[in-house]
Amino acid sequence: MSKYIAWIISIGNELLIGKTVNTNATWLARKLTLLGYDVRRIITVPDYEDDEVEVFRDAINRGVRLVVSTGGLGPTFDDKTSEYLAKALNRPYVLNDEALRLVVEKFKSRGIELTEPRLKQAKMPLGAKPLPNPVGTAPGIWVEEGSTIIVALPGVPAEMMSIFENYVEPRLREIGPKLYFVERSIEVKNIPEADLAPIIEKGMKMSNRIYIKSHPKGHEIGAPYIEIHVYASAERKEDAISDIENVVQYLIKSIKEKGGMILNES
Amino acid sequence: MSKYIAWIISIGNELLIGKTVNTNATWLARKLTLLGYDVRRIITVPDYEDDEVEVFRDAINRGVRLVVSTGGLGPTFDDKTSEYLAKALNRPYVLNDEALRLVVEKFKSRGIELTEPRLKQAKMPLGAKPLPNPVGTAPGIWVEEGSTIIVALPGVPAEMMSIFENYVEPRLREIGPKLYFVERSIEVKNIPEADLAPIIEKGMKMSNRIYIKSHPKGHEIGAPYIEIHVYASAERKEDAISDIENVVQYLIKSIKEKGGMILNES
Repeated sequence: MSKYIAWIISIGNELLIGKTVNTNATWLARKLTLLGYDVRRIITVPDYEDDEVEVFRDAINRGVRLVVSTGGLGPTFDDKTSEYLAKALNRPYVLNDEALRLVVEKFKSRGIELTEPRLKQAKMPLGAKPLPNPVGTAPGIWVEEGSTIIVALPGVPAEMMSIFENYVEPRLREIGPKLYFVERSIEVKNIPEADLAPIIEKGMKMSNRIYIKSHPKGHEIGAPYIEIHVYASAERKEDAISDIENVVQYLIKSIKEKGGMILNES
Repeated sequence: MSKYIAWIISIGNELLIGKTVNTNATWLARKLTLLGYDVRRIITVPDYEDDEVEVFRDAINRGVRLVVSTGGLGPTFDDKTSEYLAKALNRPYVLNDEALRLVVEKFKSRGIELTEPRLKQAKMPLGAKPLPNPVGTAPGIWVEEGSTIIVALPGVPAEMMSIFENYVEPRLREIGPKLYFVERSIEVKNIPEADLAPIIEKGMKMSNRIYIKSHPKGHEIGAPYIEIHVYASAERKEDAISDIENVVQYLIKSIKEKGGMILNES
């Protein structure tokens, strides 16, 4: 098992009533995977204290290496991720000097009044480090507990992405796993998914760095057009690439032998 | 706390590496909410035994009323939701006569050979009831344990939706909560989210059936266009409607008093 386990925690009732599609989680999952993390959970919880505290504590207690949350950092009454995170960490929830400076600067430069709800965005768990928000007002949060790094980001996609790309990704690249992730995609037809199963199973056994998954794009009955997604991660880029090359060649050969047709390969 | 708590469990590595956006979960969350369920978790786990067994057991141990999973019912080697669900339930994983009949019929009618991987789709936890799949081959699974109903559906969206709408939704309507869910949306500008905060907080206190949430659509600084989403659920439809009417009128009045402009209301 990888020691670089990551969890994504998505916070917000709008996700749980099916109002909003969780594209933030997909974006983050992709980013973290490419950075070499093994994303093991994406958990969506409501804006309730019990649920948020529980899920942060669970991640910390299990020693998950990296937790990235989105949502609940804004100025409204139910934006309480920072406060609940402090509870989960058993730390005081305090005004952070550096965050205060960021927030005050932001509002001053735009001539906006600094009200109590806005000031709240500068409160953080003791010992946390604020992450500047190039797009909005709420700073992100970076805090460490034991072997776990917790990064809390706003739910507005543009803010979340901007903080991550500017202040989280560069830091994770420095400290994080040095793993290379490569992937390939093969589209096939004239072969049902069930006939692919033993071919894929054998392909998987060719290397423990490889994962292969078939995705039926039509239905198995009728128009069996299937995408085969192959990915590999390895410490050395050459290993990942040579493994994936071998497996893709084997897959194409075996599929053709079974009468399957290769539509596309990328 | 509602006794109609629901969890959605999404199974599949493709979700955790950020290859696929989890639209299935959003669709189901919407359906379950409209059926009167309080969706408290959406959890994405990989296709690994430990993770799947753990999350099913967790839901059962907590007495979650309804668990709906998607993914892992197909014919390939890593489609093992049914087997892992049996483990989570501590029940034998057996060939289900009714499921076998459904699967055999499906393949016969299309003249497709019944191979071992395909036969696997008829294996289920002891005591489970198969749900016919109008679109594909893998039947869904309905199984109960204590006060928990577990419904396992395939990950292919068309199959998942078709089984749900034809065989799950009607049954949940019969046995489920008789709750009505209504919602309204107000789009406003010229008022920053932080100024809305106290208005929304007061609106929330007007009824315990009401939930109000603001979603900034521009950024707070610059183009503050905000959607306010109001929803209510109640046993009696009239209560939900009259509550939401009251709150929406209050919100519009208060926003206008603060100089805000109503762009749209629906």
